[in-house]
Amino acid sequence: MPPFFSFDGIDGGGKSTQLKLFCEWLAEQGHEPIVCRDPGSTAVGERIRNILLASDDSTPIAPRSEMLLYMAARAQLVDEVIVPALAAGRTVVSDRYLLANIVYQGHAGGLAIDSIRQVGAVATNGVAPSCTFLLDLDPAVALSRMGRELDRVENRGNEYRERLRAGFLAEAKAMGPTVHVIAADREVAVIQAELRRIAAPLLAKA
Amino acid sequence: MPPFFSFDGIDGGGKSTQLKLFCEWLAEQGHEPIVCRDPGSTAVGERIRNILLASDDSTPIAPRSEMLLYMAARAQLVDEVIVPALAAGRTVVSDRYLLANIVYQGHAGGLAIDSIRQVGAVATNGVAPSCTFLLDLDPAVALSRMGRELDRVENRGNEYRERLRAGFLAEAKAMGPTVHVIAADREVAVIQAELRRIAAPLLAKA
Repeated sequence: MPPFFSFDGIDGGGKSTQLKLFCEWLAEQGHEPIVCRDPGSTAVGERIRNILLASDDSTPIAPRSEMLLYMAARAQLVDEVIVPALAAGRTVVSDRYLLANIVYQGHAGGLAIDSIRQVGAVATNGVAPSCTFLLDLDPAVALSRMGRELDRVENRGNEYRERLRAGFLAEAKAMGPTVHVIAADREVAVIQAELRRIAAPLLAKA
Repeated sequence: MPPFFSFDGIDGGGKSTQLKLFCEWLAEQGHEPIVCRDPGSTAVGERIRNILLASDDSTPIAPRSEMLLYMAARAQLVDEVIVPALAAGRTVVSDRYLLANIVYQGHAGGLAIDSIRQVGAVATNGVAPSCTFLLDLDPAVALSRMGRELDRVENRGNEYRERLRAGFLAEAKAMGPTVHVIAADREVAVIQAELRRIAAPLLAKA
């Protein structure tokens, strides 16, 4: 089975930049990846994403409903994109995955973490990344890097972002060696080199 | 706590007619109900319903994604409508609820029933109907009663509808005395009288 990489962490940590460079490198190595984002990357998932991320939503989404919408989008992504890609021998790279759900809705959002894990096991059908890059950064620095208008989720306070960071780090510890905490307060090229060093043995095994 | 009634069963069993008459009677008895439909009855839920019921959907929804979308709509319904209504002393009547999800996606759809139950416990936050009316009817008779175009879910074969009926009856048995199996092959008024007989003691207790 080829590797399944996911990128996660708080917004402003350079996730998109690193993911893009990483995929370019994969292609150069002969492992042209299937790239997806969670939620999204399917017709159903993009419709769900629109419900979730509407920043002008005057009717707030209940936390459990929000969590379940992420799960529904993920279930579709797994069945329609990730499983077929891996079965066809393609490397998969996902912008976020279940980890984000556990951290945003659980650690930072107040839902029971065990409940999210249980629902997550159903939604993913047990399909988990072989390698997760968690880009870790001081939330204040991350925020200052974001040169665009904030969406509904981003537009929350500093304390919320601190809970996110702490949640990601706690989950990384709990999830074990498939999650790599990457210090994101360094030069882009330095970070990218670390990702590639971590990924190389997984690609060699595939 | 006032009673929470749900109506369920295969389409064409007279659910809508009976629900309407039942709510009229509740109002006459001084128990003007909050009426909702699952999925639906919230802004988020109606948007989810549109994703689910689009009969011209060229991209099929993965079974787990479909189930999770129903759950997301239900979580919103519980928090935004059902719990506040009950807390305010209002009787609630819902057109379908978790039972339908277990039967359509589990018994008839092939998903693991235990998984649906687990996700359902999270989605509903443990909020369950105090009384479910299961309108039971031979699927062939039910189909012949439906004088309109079938939607994506309805537009399936006879064997599928038989699995639905069997699933509803099996769940009714498993769920115990809160679920009442109502023979729906009788006169509308006869059925309605039975529902009212069952409901009366629950209203007296409320």
